Amino acid sequence: MTMTPHLDRIAGPADMRALSDSALAELAREVRNEVIASVSQTGGHLGSSLGVVELAVAIHAVFDTPRDKLVWDVGHQCYPHKILTGRRDRMTSLRQEGGISGFTKRSESRFDPFGAAHSSTSISAALGFTMGRDLGMDTGDAIAVIGDGSISAGMAYEAMNNAGAEGRRMFVILNDNEMSIAPPVGAMSKYLSGLYASPFGEMQKMAEGFESALPGPLRDHARRARQLVTGAAPGNQGTLFESLGFSYIGPIDGHDMSQLLPVLRAARTRATGPVLIHVCTTKGKGYAPAEGAADKGHGVSKFDPATGQQAKGKPNAPSYTKVFGEALTQEAAHDPAIVAVTAAMPSGTGVNIMADRFPARVFDVGIAEQHGVTFAAGMAASGLKPFCAIYSTFLQRGYDQIVHDVALQNLPVRFAIDRAGLVGADGPTHAGAFDIGYLSALPNMVVMAASDEAELMHMVRTAAAYDDGPIAFRYPRGEGEGVSMPDRGDVLEIGKGRIVVEGDDIAILSFGAHMGECVKARALMEAQGVSVTLADARFAKPLDRDLIRQLLKNHKALITVEQGSQGGFGAMVLHDLANDGLLDGRCQLRTVTLPDRYIDQAAPDAMYAEAGMTAVDIAATAMQAAGVSPRKVGLVSG
Amino acid sequence: MTMTPHLDRIAGPADMRALSDSALAELAREVRNEVIASVSQTGGHLGSSLGVVELAVAIHAVFDTPRDKLVWDVGHQCYPHKILTGRRDRMTSLRQEGGISGFTKRSESRFDPFGAAHSSTSISAALGFTMGRDLGMDTGDAIAVIGDGSISAGMAYEAMNNAGAEGRRMFVILNDNEMSIAPPVGAMSKYLSGLYASPFGEMQKMAEGFESALPGPLRDHARRARQLVTGAAPGNQGTLFESLGFSYIGPIDGHDMSQLLPVLRAARTRATGPVLIHVCTTKGKGYAPAEGAADKGHGVSKFDPATGQQAKGKPNAPSYTKVFGEALTQEAAHDPAIVAVTAAMPSGTGVNIMADRFPARVFDVGIAEQHGVTFAAGMAASGLKPFCAIYSTFLQRGYDQIVHDVALQNLPVRFAIDRAGLVGADGPTHAGAFDIGYLSALPNMVVMAASDEAELMHMVRTAAAYDDGPIAFRYPRGEGEGVSMPDRGDVLEIGKGRIVVEGDDIAILSFGAHMGECVKARALMEAQGVSVTLADARFAKPLDRDLIRQLLKNHKALITVEQGSQGGFGAMVLHDLANDGLLDGRCQLRTVTLPDRYIDQAAPDAMYAEAGMTAVDIAATAMQAAGVSPRKVGLVSG
Repeated sequence: MTMTPHLDRIAGPADMRALSDSALAELAREVRNEVIASVSQTGGHLGSSLGVVELAVAIHAVFDTPRDKLVWDVGHQCYPHKILTGRRDRMTSLRQEGGISGFTKRSESRFDPFGAAHSSTSISAALGFTMGRDLGMDTGDAIAVIGDGSISAGMAYEAMNNAGAEGRRMFVILNDNEMSIAPPVGAMSKYLSGLYASPFGEMQKMAEGFESALPGPLRDHARRARQLVTGAAPGNQGTLFESLGFSYIGPIDGHDMSQLLPVLRAARTRATGPVLIHVCTTKGKGYAPAEGAADKGHGVSKFDPATGQQAKGKPNAPSYTKVFGEALTQEAAHDPAIVAVTAAMPSGTGVNIMADRFPARVFDVGIAEQHGVTFAAGMAASGLKPFCAIYSTFLQRGYDQIVHDVALQNLPVRFAIDRAGLVGADGPTHAGAFDIGYLSALPNMVVMAASDEAELMHMVRTAAAYDDGPIAFRYPRGEGEGVSMPDRGDVLEIGKGRIVVEGDDIAILSFGAHMGECVKARALMEAQGVSVTLADARFAKPLDRDLIRQLLKNHKALITVEQGSQGGFGAMVLHDLANDGLLDGRCQLRTVTLPDRYIDQAAPDAMYAEAGMTAVDIAATAMQAAGVSPRKVGLVSG
Repeated sequence: MTMTPHLDRIAGPADMRALSDSALAELAREVRNEVIASVSQTGGHLGSSLGVVELAVAIHAVFDTPRDKLVWDVGHQCYPHKILTGRRDRMTSLRQEGGISGFTKRSESRFDPFGAAHSSTSISAALGFTMGRDLGMDTGDAIAVIGDGSISAGMAYEAMNNAGAEGRRMFVILNDNEMSIAPPVGAMSKYLSGLYASPFGEMQKMAEGFESALPGPLRDHARRARQLVTGAAPGNQGTLFESLGFSYIGPIDGHDMSQLLPVLRAARTRATGPVLIHVCTTKGKGYAPAEGAADKGHGVSKFDPATGQQAKGKPNAPSYTKVFGEALTQEAAHDPAIVAVTAAMPSGTGVNIMADRFPARVFDVGIAEQHGVTFAAGMAASGLKPFCAIYSTFLQRGYDQIVHDVALQNLPVRFAIDRAGLVGADGPTHAGAFDIGYLSALPNMVVMAASDEAELMHMVRTAAAYDDGPIAFRYPRGEGEGVSMPDRGDVLEIGKGRIVVEGDDIAILSFGAHMGECVKARALMEAQGVSVTLADARFAKPLDRDLIRQLLKNHKALITVEQGSQGGFGAMVLHDLANDGLLDGRCQLRTVTLPDRYIDQAAPDAMYAEAGMTAVDIAATAMQAAGVSPRKVGLVSG
């Protein structure tokens, strides 16, 4: 007899709508076990997915997906949804090369009407579908499911502000687990906590109209709560969500199908305008090792389902993140003006290491990159020395603030840009592909990239010492090269690169962490008798113009290499040389960058191979440019 | 006898602190007249500045500026502040070449601790100064003054969420005039309106502690209001601002110094945490032509102070904005799926023209570019055809949403990018300098620029017809070239440019609205016997690779020209040619772009001259590149 009798009979959500409430509760139990079993084989976002098992079952049972548009915010909680929407048999390929995404993805299923991975986009997207419905497109109702961390971001607020004013029928389900990746911060978080801490507070209220559709015990509870509230002064404005024009219903227990199903049914039957349903869940629910973990099993590697013990590869070198955190802490010990800002990623960025030692000087602003950047600018204007530590892909959220508040005012904000380049299992949504270009375009900005973890230490020290304007340094996800580490970083000369090794025929000028691959490319070419200079640009801005001209003058080909999109470092080099009239053909130029397409998830090395950026690719490009036969290059092992 | 006896005796805010309350009220009257008189000579943001005359006087009288850090949000209301802080004699140079900025600017005065021009940054900056104060920097308290439109943006919400949780002493003054540039939209706006509509509603409440420091009549009013509120249920959460951790005081009359001064003094004396002071003002206050205008005198040209009659130059051609609005409306009439999104700029972007005819299909989302872009993505996913009309400089606010929600998902959102390039009096904060680069880096994105207003019509039609993915088209501020206009635009072939005129020696490949200057540059060169091909690239992405190769093959020099920063169109051309091995020196390449510095305000032509982008500059660059003597070029009149 199978362990999953209900799940086995579900080809898709349509099959769920014939099930009894008790069968749906059974189905949820089976889905939970399935999530644990499959993530134990793949790793992934376990805790978030376990927290929404009942919610996923209930939504698909009550709403008419895929005609109704279900948008999971961030999307890392979507595994139960994937299991229920025809992807059960592909769960073992999750987050792997050629497999299904760890997030929702439009190209993967018609049950994923809007892809996600960055936070707080779901209400905006759901409002867009709602407009489509009301303007005659063939679409049903829209449902956004958003966590309490994500709803605190400005973008979600903007969307609620707009949706509340529009007043159209749509559903926002607040999945409140008091935990995003880190515990949420900010006043909104305290506010939400206040709601369910007070048993009869106004937040227990359920909007009129829903109430009568609720089953007995729930209805009584709602009525009691609402009486307390409606006895208040006439000026009373209700919840914050009601201030923004939403009907509010909740909080309800997100693991109790006997609450979820009737509330969702009532909402679906009765709603005429925007409704916020406040659902309380437990991250990691139903699996003790996740519930008991500090991060509630947010992101796990493969594990033993019986014990929760995760497989851990032995690291060969410290991670760039750790090196940054420790170097920052070291500089902070030397200079009390150094402070750090993170946007809800204290451990992801490594600033938690500084926070352990200097808690008053590290600020977690929540999922609020726009504010975080300008907050750092304000601190810089006051004389502090802020390090703003935000992943490359998320720094896109603060771009206008970098332009307008930091660079234009030439304020010395230090941007520590982790996860630059391709990032592996998180795939294209998290690729740090564009920062070199979007930062190097800005007057006043200094842009560095670390070629190894010792270089990162130098760059942290350099950024700490540099107080003349904004400075950014980028480094990749993962572990370093294993190089020997200095006691403390050196202060680098601004705008100066370095020659790593000199040769005669071809010059490779690498910007950042692809240096390891460039070293291999050089070895491939040297093995064929081609003499190769290897240089580390260190700076995309200001460029080391002397170094570039020296390389240009003395080689048949100059190849720039960067872990970023076109329009970045290589483009800066070409622009500079073109306008000095130095593109005379005597030295051939090539720019190795990410290609003009998105690269699906795989191991980072495999992603760079797919991008055409292996040592073999680089060597072939270089030798073709220099007019040396690339014939044998492909045969040499990388 | 002078008309400004008090103002004449004020060298700076320190002198104001000895004045009696009645003298400060007199001073405010004088400042108002001074604002009217000086803006009548320069034009500028009249209405906003008139609305905060009393507030500016009161803040400087009560707080210890410049040690206390006063941050005006957006900054277009800063004229009274400039008059009071030592810039009175320079007001006639406002927004002009070599003159003072129309916004706050750090380099201009120590009373401008944080520059502004984009909305909703002030609370973030003020919190930054507050941290500086608390971490030992030599700075006093921070005061942010922010309008009701600006405080509705997500960024301001993020900042309040953070400031409320931090709980540090700081001041946010909500300048509530029910009017930003357009009437504000969204649920927050309705909420604020509700506050002062209800005379004894909870919003009349003043936080305890302040109350006893207030003068008699105000105190009584506050007490009465508060009693009504404190009679409410224990679960009552107070105002939305109190939900976010702020003490709330107000609303008070922002034109009544007998309310403003005691409330600010009480707040300054008593505050221990973050305080929000809700001040109601009238945009254009005290000048009937402004108060009576639909836009409350938001932005005016020079005018006759006696009548308010503005000087209007006769336009030679329709503005690009109007051409866009009309072409959009025309396409919308052909296709009911076309919808439009604006972020609080209905008339600035011209979508008001479509709204007049199709009101249900035009959405003003408020100052909410992040939401606006993803909302448009959601609509596109539903099958609608959204045009997202946002100025180049403000589109920076939605960059991550363009990357993550639009381009990565290949959703057909049409970006109509007005104010591309240098914009004149608004200066560097509003320059649309970076969009070519930051958009062209994105896989799936199509990027166009209009070389004249007829081309803009073609591009609107092309964007309406293109449904395969995202497409953007940029065009400048101001009026068109006066070309003859088609009845309706043509659908352009994606990725194809056009030869405007053929020559032999030099090729100029222009992307966008600098074509007029390129035509002049060609005339200069032709006058010297140099034969010049002129081409209109139309597309920065995808590039017209055939056209570029043809120009390269047949000319001694190829000059790209664009109204944007380095790393844009020229860089894309260089990147493409380099990687095909075509930079062989037989044809010299040059990229004419904005230089790597910010250009201060002046007339757009003067700004482009300062940028080194005149016809003479282009011709000189081209002839030098082609090896033709540029000796006589400078002598020829442009």
